[in-house]
Amino acid sequence: MRLTVYLAGEIHTPWREEVKQQVKQLQLPIDFVGPMEDHDRSDHIGEEILGEQPDTILKDVAASSLNNLRTELLMKKSDVVIALFGEQYKQWNTAMDASAAVAFGKPLIIIRQEKHHHPLKELSRKAHVTVESVEQAVQALHYIFE
Amino acid sequence: MRLTVYLAGEIHTPWREEVKQQVKQLQLPIDFVGPMEDHDRSDHIGEEILGEQPDTILKDVAASSLNNLRTELLMKKSDVVIALFGEQYKQWNTAMDASAAVAFGKPLIIIRQEKHHHPLKELSRKAHVTVESVEQAVQALHYIFE
Amino acid sequence: MRLTVYLAGEIHTPWREEVKQQVKQLQLPIDFVGPMEDHDRSDHIGEEILGEQPDTILKDVAASSLNNLRTELLMKKSDVVIALFGEQYKQWNTAMDASAAVAFGKPLIIIRQEKHHHPLKELSRKAHVTVESVEQAVQALHYIFE
Amino acid sequence: MRLTVYLAGEIHTPWREEVKQQVKQLQLPIDFVGPMEDHDRSDHIGEEILGEQPDTILKDVAASSLNNLRTELLMKKSDVVIALFGEQYKQWNTAMDASAAVAFGKPLIIIRQEKHHHPLKELSRKAHVTVESVEQAVQALHYIFE
Amino acid sequence: MRLTVYLAGEIHTPWREEVKQQVKQLQLPIDFVGPMEDHDRSDHIGEEILGEQPDTILKDVAASSLNNLRTELLMKKSDVVIALFGEQYKQWNTAMDASAAVAFGKPLIIIRQEKHHHPLKELSRKAHVTVESVEQAVQALHYIFE
Amino acid sequence: MRLTVYLAGEIHTPWREEVKQQVKQLQLPIDFVGPMEDHDRSDHIGEEILGEQPDTILKDVAASSLNNLRTELLMKKSDVVIALFGEQYKQWNTAMDASAAVAFGKPLIIIRQEKHHHPLKELSRKAHVTVESVEQAVQALHYIFE
Amino acid sequence: MRLTVYLAGEIHTPWREEVKQQVKQLQLPIDFVGPMEDHDRSDHIGEEILGEQPDTILKDVAASSLNNLRTELLMKKSDVVIALFGEQYKQWNTAMDASAAVAFGKPLIIIRQEKHHHPLKELSRKAHVTVESVEQAVQALHYIFE
Amino acid sequence: MRLTVYLAGEIHTPWREEVKQQVKQLQLPIDFVGPMEDHDRSDHIGEEILGEQPDTILKDVAASSLNNLRTELLMKKSDVVIALFGEQYKQWNTAMDASAAVAFGKPLIIIRQEKHHHPLKELSRKAHVTVESVEQAVQALHYIFE
Repeated sequence: MRLTVYLAGEIHTPWREEVKQQVKQLQLPIDFVGPMEDHDRSDHIGEEILGEQPDTILKDVAASSLNNLRTELLMKKSDVVIALFGEQYKQWNTAMDASAAVAFGKPLIIIRQEKHHHPLKELSRKAHVTVESVEQAVQALHYIFE
Repeated sequence: MRLTVYLAGEIHTPWREEVKQQVKQLQLPIDFVGPMEDHDRSDHIGEEILGEQPDTILKDVAASSLNNLRTELLMKKSDVVIALFGEQYKQWNTAMDASAAVAFGKPLIIIRQEKHHHPLKELSRKAHVTVESVEQAVQALHYIFE
Repeated sequence: MRLTVYLAGEIHTPWREEVKQQVKQLQLPIDFVGPMEDHDRSDHIGEEILGEQPDTILKDVAASSLNNLRTELLMKKSDVVIALFGEQYKQWNTAMDASAAVAFGKPLIIIRQEKHHHPLKELSRKAHVTVESVEQAVQALHYIFE
Repeated sequence: MRLTVYLAGEIHTPWREEVKQQVKQLQLPIDFVGPMEDHDRSDHIGEEILGEQPDTILKDVAASSLNNLRTELLMKKSDVVIALFGEQYKQWNTAMDASAAVAFGKPLIIIRQEKHHHPLKELSRKAHVTVESVEQAVQALHYIFE
Repeated sequence: MRLTVYLAGEIHTPWREEVKQQVKQLQLPIDFVGPMEDHDRSDHIGEEILGEQPDTILKDVAASSLNNLRTELLMKKSDVVIALFGEQYKQWNTAMDASAAVAFGKPLIIIRQEKHHHPLKELSRKAHVTVESVEQAVQALHYIFE
Repeated sequence: MRLTVYLAGEIHTPWREEVKQQVKQLQLPIDFVGPMEDHDRSDHIGEEILGEQPDTILKDVAASSLNNLRTELLMKKSDVVIALFGEQYKQWNTAMDASAAVAFGKPLIIIRQEKHHHPLKELSRKAHVTVESVEQAVQALHYIFE
Repeated sequence: MRLTVYLAGEIHTPWREEVKQQVKQLQLPIDFVGPMEDHDRSDHIGEEILGEQPDTILKDVAASSLNNLRTELLMKKSDVVIALFGEQYKQWNTAMDASAAVAFGKPLIIIRQEKHHHPLKELSRKAHVTVESVEQAVQALHYIFE
Repeated sequence: MRLTVYLAGEIHTPWREEVKQQVKQLQLPIDFVGPMEDHDRSDHIGEEILGEQPDTILKDVAASSLNNLRTELLMKKSDVVIALFGEQYKQWNTAMDASAAVAFGKPLIIIRQEKHHHPLKELSRKAHVTVESVEQAVQALHYIFE
């Protein structure tokens, strides 16, 4: 049995690489998918494909069209979603992805620092597990295969 | 035909009252539901019902149990969701509610200031309409009844 | 038992009034809903609520946001959908509404002139009944109550 | 990860070949499915299998039975739908397929010339992305695999 | 709490009247719906609304269009389905309605004589209850309200 | 807004009356439904309607047919499920009802004594709230209406 | 692309072998599943596994438990259902399987002799295609792969 | 065709090994999944990953988070669920898993001793088959492949 895991959340730290390396060391049969991790490309993909847009809002609309296409398709293909909430940015689309995962019946693992518990409490209560580190999330994946 | 509208989002400004008053003036047959608007009560409801908790995280877990019970029940009863993103706080549960609304097929109207467009772009692209003021959201409701 | 019927399709002939009058004469307990029938208002509603848009395409995007909000909400509230294909325009949103009705399990009655049968054949095959006149569609509604 | 893409829409220009060639050059792991592209065969398949029909309308009914069987089965097998609206014909079944894709939660990419934006505005608003050329649609597919 | 009960099955004996009378005597708050009970009208409704058809098969196709429209709509409105299998006819649409009820999650009560158990065994195993008389079916309805 | 609450669980203590009285004192607009509370009648209903059965197992099969018909219908009509686990019996159908509530998206409140936490831990983790007394469950209902 | 086809219906003529042979000659990539074709085994499987039953009705109940387990599992695994109505027996479970196929969104091909059209008219109207011979059903499968 | 079977239920007897061995002897193409079978590990997994918890209830909450993550994921991957009710413990999560299987449309085989029939009667009535031994359950699996 192979699993596909969607890695939602911030794209400014190398946490996805850490997940993948630890999973590789454990030799778990897991394939990973996730959002475009190059922030600039994620912001410019709309204009790149659809052409220059009249203003920054419409540039955002264009980019989000492509990003949503990618995210929805790949999340549907996945068996589990791990969502990491980091330090920076508002991360509303991380919350959006985590909530969509719950709504579509995909088991959800949230990674967040303890200090973020309060604003995340309602979402965290809907997750299957909330942890504080990549290591713990990988342990949860490991437990599925034991 | 009466509609039920869930008013998701921040509870620190009187925007829900503004929505209700404007809808009343237009005599639209709309019932409103939404989260507990008393912030303190929302934070303490867990301990109030379940008793004192060992630490602040568990206090949050207890409170979010009750808040999620309320939100999920009332959102299921509603026909449309309006989610307002304000100035303060991280508002991850507003994003969670908005995303759940989309996932459950509830039409979604987002109210946000223009400056928040970028972090909201993916969620906004999934909404039916994104506006900048309560007036505009009420106009959208009005249009349904014309 | 009251039924709600969504009247999809062209807004340039008074066919909805004919349906309503015939239903009234038969004293059938039916409520009707449907799209904005004032074509200009339907085209301008986006700019009216969201403000002037940079170009005509974006004006269309804005208008369709509001029209889709209205249509999806009202179609979900309905028990049967009647879709009339007329002479003018491309009527792709009539086909869209009819197809959505089928996908959501709403019984569908199509009204079209015989000469349009060929381009409508796949959609017509998915409808419960295809008729050529308002009178026939009303007879079908009547049959439900007999 | 391989994807299956349903290519809906007109069958009178070689746009499907263009999509396939461009995808092949990019070496994307995509399988394509779609409707019967031989227009005559698509129109005659009903009589071919079910025998001669009393009139042209019943010939259409017979043909559409087989075409719908094929389309529904293959669309269910696909991960993404690309719908191209061309110059000729009414293309109501293209609109039907695009709308069904949205209803079944399949991400939808619409290809249409700018001049068709107005009649397509409501359907376009439901698509994930609307583009004007095959190249752009393929770029959108490419972005999923980056 | 009022319930709506769909009475599927044969239309050649007055069993529906018996159900209604017994329910009335028990003063249970139940509304009844069901198929067209006038066999001739059920067979001719297609030609009545759609006009004369080329042959008897197409007359049947036309009639079944209207009968299915009626049945699907009314069954969706119901809370429980009672299906009676009688002596005469093949009753394939009774089996169809009973199976659809199960598939849509509507509790199903089957009434059949003991001698029909063997050919009905698979369908009967999917029903909530299988009884042999109208009286027993009404008792089952009664039990819901106790 | 009125709510319907299904009261699942043991039928040997008067806890349902306590819930109803407390809700009445709070004047909450709630209707209650639930299983047959007369244990003997619940055990004998199969033979009462379907006649004497060959052995006690078949008597149980007959009774459970009617009990499941009742439970499934009434649970579908409800907005919230409260499941109380008591001292006696194995209560596997309480666990069954609670699990079905979760699967069908009905918010679930579990009442159990603290000493039962361990065997209930997996089910409890799926509930919205787990409390130890009727009073607390009623407070949770109250919170929905505040 | 391989397809799985469920062959529902009578088990007293070798029609399944004919389907398989014709499909083999056409080299279509199709796997076939279906009910137990040995009538005796199908009738006795309940007692074989569950032991002797008190009477013939309970023997039927036992057998249908296993037959339904098999049918539901295999039908869920299939992409298309072909249901053949033959000359003999009441064939209520063929009608049940065909109706379940429609309800679960599986494309349905019915094979029946023309003389059976009238009693099958409502079910036939829900099928994608109704044909009179195995050859025609195989042609319909062939058309999917062209 | 390979099947995946989820083995729910008690983890204190080697019944899963018996199922696997008998299936192996019959050379049935079946993969098995199930809960963590090491009871201690199942109880401690929460603290192992999430760290020491304030009390035994919270230790249970932590453990059940991981156990539910595992169970829900693996049950979704399975085609059939076999649930064994044993002698010891309350086994409320076995009842929970069996009920969830039914709700999600997974065919369910229950294994229980005859003496447990009464408390299991409602759940047993929802199962496809109830047997008394591992041998019988394996025979049921075998029948699917014949």
